[in-house]
Amino acid sequence: MRRASLLVDASAVRAILARVGRDALMDGLITRLTDAIAAFDPAIARVPVRAGVQYMRPAFGLLEWMPAYLGDSETLVKVVGYHPTNPDLRGVPTVISTMGLFDTESGHLAGIVDGTFLTALRTGAASAVASRVLGSPGSRTLGVIGCGAQAVTQIHALTRIFPLERVLAYDIKPEVASTLANRVRFLNLRIETVTIERLAALVAESDILCTCTSAAPGEGPVFADGPTRGHLHVNAVGSDFPGKFELPRPLLRRAFVCPDFREQATVEGECQQLDDSGIGPDLCALVQAPGRYEAERARVTVFDSTGWALEDHVAARMTFELAREFGVGREIELECLPPDPKDPYSVLEASSEAVAAWLPVAARL
Amino acid sequence: MRRASLLVDASAVRAILARVGRDALMDGLITRLTDAIAAFDPAIARVPVRAGVQYMRPAFGLLEWMPAYLGDSETLVKVVGYHPTNPDLRGVPTVISTMGLFDTESGHLAGIVDGTFLTALRTGAASAVASRVLGSPGSRTLGVIGCGAQAVTQIHALTRIFPLERVLAYDIKPEVASTLANRVRFLNLRIETVTIERLAALVAESDILCTCTSAAPGEGPVFADGPTRGHLHVNAVGSDFPGKFELPRPLLRRAFVCPDFREQATVEGECQQLDDSGIGPDLCALVQAPGRYEAERARVTVFDSTGWALEDHVAARMTFELAREFGVGREIELECLPPDPKDPYSVLEASSEAVAAWLPVAARL
Repeated sequence: MRRASLLVDASAVRAILARVGRDALMDGLITRLTDAIAAFDPAIARVPVRAGVQYMRPAFGLLEWMPAYLGDSETLVKVVGYHPTNPDLRGVPTVISTMGLFDTESGHLAGIVDGTFLTALRTGAASAVASRVLGSPGSRTLGVIGCGAQAVTQIHALTRIFPLERVLAYDIKPEVASTLANRVRFLNLRIETVTIERLAALVAESDILCTCTSAAPGEGPVFADGPTRGHLHVNAVGSDFPGKFELPRPLLRRAFVCPDFREQATVEGECQQLDDSGIGPDLCALVQAPGRYEAERARVTVFDSTGWALEDHVAARMTFELAREFGVGREIELECLPPDPKDPYSVLEASSEAVAAWLPVAARL
Repeated sequence: MRRASLLVDASAVRAILARVGRDALMDGLITRLTDAIAAFDPAIARVPVRAGVQYMRPAFGLLEWMPAYLGDSETLVKVVGYHPTNPDLRGVPTVISTMGLFDTESGHLAGIVDGTFLTALRTGAASAVASRVLGSPGSRTLGVIGCGAQAVTQIHALTRIFPLERVLAYDIKPEVASTLANRVRFLNLRIETVTIERLAALVAESDILCTCTSAAPGEGPVFADGPTRGHLHVNAVGSDFPGKFELPRPLLRRAFVCPDFREQATVEGECQQLDDSGIGPDLCALVQAPGRYEAERARVTVFDSTGWALEDHVAARMTFELAREFGVGREIELECLPPDPKDPYSVLEASSEAVAAWLPVAARL
């Protein structure tokens, strides 16, 4: 058994992104995610609803685990923290995470990679996958409510699928909305920020709408129900906590609503607001039989995206493959396995492979 | 905020063990564990019952997470795998794990360390802590049923508390029992292996008994009820799964039974065999008011040890402190945090601190 773990650290992730480029990385992830969802077999896979520990000292915080066993050779475990004071107090994102891929046969940690960047990337890719089935192919106007980190990858991912020209953007903090254009300048879109007075118009004019706010539990919805285009498709990305939702219930009720992961969406997503009978097929059903839902495109549709560990699995695997291809990252010997499995103290007798293991992968190819 | 994560890899764990020595490391852990349990406040702490994903392809396997928030500056997440084919097919332990300590304020991964060796160590230390309260102080004969990896640290830990002279050892596989003496030769004890015919005598002659078998669910108990010393104390270490237990129910029923973690022990431990009324105080109650249970020493007592993430928290913290003290391990920049928290792609603009970060800690002091 290989005892090395591939460590894909921040510099390796940056190197991969720089070498592949944003567009090709997003395209690759959208393709792989579509394939993984198409192959997903719920009878074999084990992707439980995420579980966590939540605490109030020194401030509100939450650590969760998101595992995904898909029946193949590697099983994902993502550990993700939500610490809302991070941006203001520490200048780092609210959501920070790490992903490990474990050898399914042995439980060996085959690789470890930052999950912070990949989570933003895969959340965008998931909206692209859902929107390709549910959105109007000619969509040109994208509405965005909530202009933080997720908005960037949502907009980017959707430009890979739709001929978008214009983005109407609103944020409860005007200073956040005002910087969005600069953050997505690489996309050459027309970005129009709107004030609260024009929020209803933003919704009404959008072909596709993304809500990616950090509205606290009980604060939603983030816009009032009103007129929309008949074919409006909404990606509701912000909900990830009981009591937290973004969409007005009347809109949900008349829409065709598809959760990423039904069991989680009914606890943490927009589906909290619906009875079972109001919830449509999940993302898996959508991708596995897209033709069946063709007619729904003419209606208002909603993708209820709470974050599904399958998406993380796909993103992590792609990243490890690219790291190996490019020779970035490092092999480490993390697990202290005893030469005699029946004697923990025999680790003392282990010959140290550590020096060789610390060479960057590239130097060993 | 510090962005570095301290990586305590296999070679660093070996260096710490070699430098501190087995005895001092075990003594330090027993002391710290006692202190942490004495300070444990269930109203503040969050240590949920472990959750996992279990699968049957390509073979039976299980990955679990064990988090522990104790109200202080670092929160533990251990990810642990159970893959019973490991020893025979791959020559590595059934249980392999990794521990992360997360900054409670920000969710930043402050450090990552192998958990395989530390789990064996802390399981021994936990039995020592419980046995100090419940065992007879003059205990000289230790019975051991199951002579695998856990037996080594159980025996070692108990020698740090009791004047043990003799170990009576039984394993369902005689070849495993036969190597135990060599594995614990550093303890200068008299090791007597016994056959199945003398198993009842082993139990009858023991002052303290440790059961640390890998009996499958439904296979227990691992010995039949029979005569014991009046003050027998049992550390039941093997149970960690629904349906899995080691002790005969009549013995449990007449004993004073203390679980490490009641909610978990009633699902996975010996306490599965008892009604609520048959379960005594937990390890926390025992350590916080040892005088209250003084009289119970004269009875048969049982420590139902299923594995408590608090123990891992203490072991991980001790290891990180020692790594910093000795300058072993390495600081890495694992999390790929964007300079602009609202722009995931701004990671591309990050100045690379990676080269400096790859220096071993010792070189940077």
